[in-house]
Amino acid sequence: MDLVVVGSVAYDSVETKWGKRDNALGGAATFFSVAASHFTTPGLVGVVGDDFQEHDVDLLKRCGVNLEGLERAAGKTFRWGGVYHDDMNGRDTLFTELNVFEAFQPKLPAEYRSAQFLFLGNIHPSLQAEVLEQVDTPRFVGLDTMNLWIDIGRPELVRVLERVDALFVNDEEARQLTGKHNLRDAADAIRDMGPSVAVIKRGEYGAVVFSEDDVFVMPAFLLERVVDPTGAGDTFAGGFMGHLAETQDLTPTNLRKAAVVGNVMASFCVEGFSLDTLGTVTRDEITKRYREFVDLTSFTDL
Amino acid sequence: MDLVVVGSVAYDSVETKWGKRDNALGGAATFFSVAASHFTTPGLVGVVGDDFQEHDVDLLKRCGVNLEGLERAAGKTFRWGGVYHDDMNGRDTLFTELNVFEAFQPKLPAEYRSAQFLFLGNIHPSLQAEVLEQVDTPRFVGLDTMNLWIDIGRPELVRVLERVDALFVNDEEARQLTGKHNLRDAADAIRDMGPSVAVIKRGEYGAVVFSEDDVFVMPAFLLERVVDPTGAGDTFAGGFMGHLAETQDLTPTNLRKAAVVGNVMASFCVEGFSLDTLGTVTRDEITKRYREFVDLTSFTDL
Repeated sequence: MDLVVVGSVAYDSVETKWGKRDNALGGAATFFSVAASHFTTPGLVGVVGDDFQEHDVDLLKRCGVNLEGLERAAGKTFRWGGVYHDDMNGRDTLFTELNVFEAFQPKLPAEYRSAQFLFLGNIHPSLQAEVLEQVDTPRFVGLDTMNLWIDIGRPELVRVLERVDALFVNDEEARQLTGKHNLRDAADAIRDMGPSVAVIKRGEYGAVVFSEDDVFVMPAFLLERVVDPTGAGDTFAGGFMGHLAETQDLTPTNLRKAAVVGNVMASFCVEGFSLDTLGTVTRDEITKRYREFVDLTSFTDL
Repeated sequence: MDLVVVGSVAYDSVETKWGKRDNALGGAATFFSVAASHFTTPGLVGVVGDDFQEHDVDLLKRCGVNLEGLERAAGKTFRWGGVYHDDMNGRDTLFTELNVFEAFQPKLPAEYRSAQFLFLGNIHPSLQAEVLEQVDTPRFVGLDTMNLWIDIGRPELVRVLERVDALFVNDEEARQLTGKHNLRDAADAIRDMGPSVAVIKRGEYGAVVFSEDDVFVMPAFLLERVVDPTGAGDTFAGGFMGHLAETQDLTPTNLRKAAVVGNVMASFCVEGFSLDTLGTVTRDEITKRYREFVDLTSFTDL
């Protein structure tokens, strides 16, 4: 197992101006692993309830996600419901039911413990640390977090960050974590905390990757239609880490490519509800869209 | 005269977290023409009062701005005062005194009438139309506008847009003008109104250029220190139009370069108050920063 991810597997009920979908397969680890499955065989660590549908197991398996690490517990699967505003940026959460996720104690199957690439999805930092403990000698560890953990779990977060290679956060979270408004300053502060790579996600405006002496600024696609933004950030990280696991190359040049691959995968993700597009896209379509991004952003030297 | 610009020449009183400057030379036509002066000799059409300082005349002349079209009227020069929030995005206007600008009736000197490149800065669309009337056969006309004119001067704006080649607006203005939220849809709607080119400015996130069958998305620089954002949009347009006037090339490939040149000039503008940086930067520094932008944004193909 080259790449392991821990995080939520959920049933989402989502409404956007393009439609409505109830109890659709979602969750950070789901989006991440399906995105990564186009490049490697990811192992998923998470928990679902006894209501988890067989056809969703089949879907993940068909995508090539390894489910040895997906625990089944008595009770209901994590559920989230929300409505997106018409501009697709803001959203109102209607409900969050942790259900079986509340007592989740991640346990890694033996074959996951030798993973070279590990992604600690957005869960409590002390759980992220427990997962990290169970992996022997990971070569590259990514971590996602959110405002809630920065607020209520900062000491644990700071501790686990010391052992992480790349932090994935959005610009607001980077500012909240570091107290620095300027992104360069925030990235410097993050890199002082442990990670050598800071990946700052900017939603519809793209992302910035800071690594060693390298800074890469990338816009996002300009899509004709964003159907459902749910999971875009996790999908970005899944494409990013999937590309690294496939190429086994951690040079700044390849980190830039990884960011573009993440961007490409996120663009597919938001074009459909749930995994509608992300789960069915082909490698040729991924390559084609990468080239479209080259066309969209390239310019000649003076 | 290859390039003519009409717009405000002002004294700005600006406060940011980096300092405070009273009665500093500013105004849309000032920033535009100084940016463009690095590439061509721009002719400035505007009005100042009898309080306009000789050293400011000298500064503009030293930059290579032609001032035949700068009228002197009895009264005070246009004044604006504002305070920027610490994040440098929001700002509060403290005062706006139109002064001599209120009765401004732009009149072009004979040598301006053969201009091939014309920029109609952000003034009332009926004044923009009057300037356009006075230029014989312009090859490429750019226009900037704002929410106020979209609100109270829409019929006049729509009429002048029919005769314009490129509209420069920010994303909010594009949405307000067209009623379309998606930028591609907004750009299509703008191009249906007359301009073949839509340049959508996104502030700290860069810009998008739509032309014929071409779409170019560009992030902005990530500056260590933004001292004063005043005039960044006008400077962007000045670099853009200055590059076109210098190269006389309207292909999509060259429009992309023009956008990057505009971006480079705007990055210098915001590094100092007023014209502190923009007015003193050298051509070598401009070329060097263009190359830095190539480094910041480039990535390899898959």
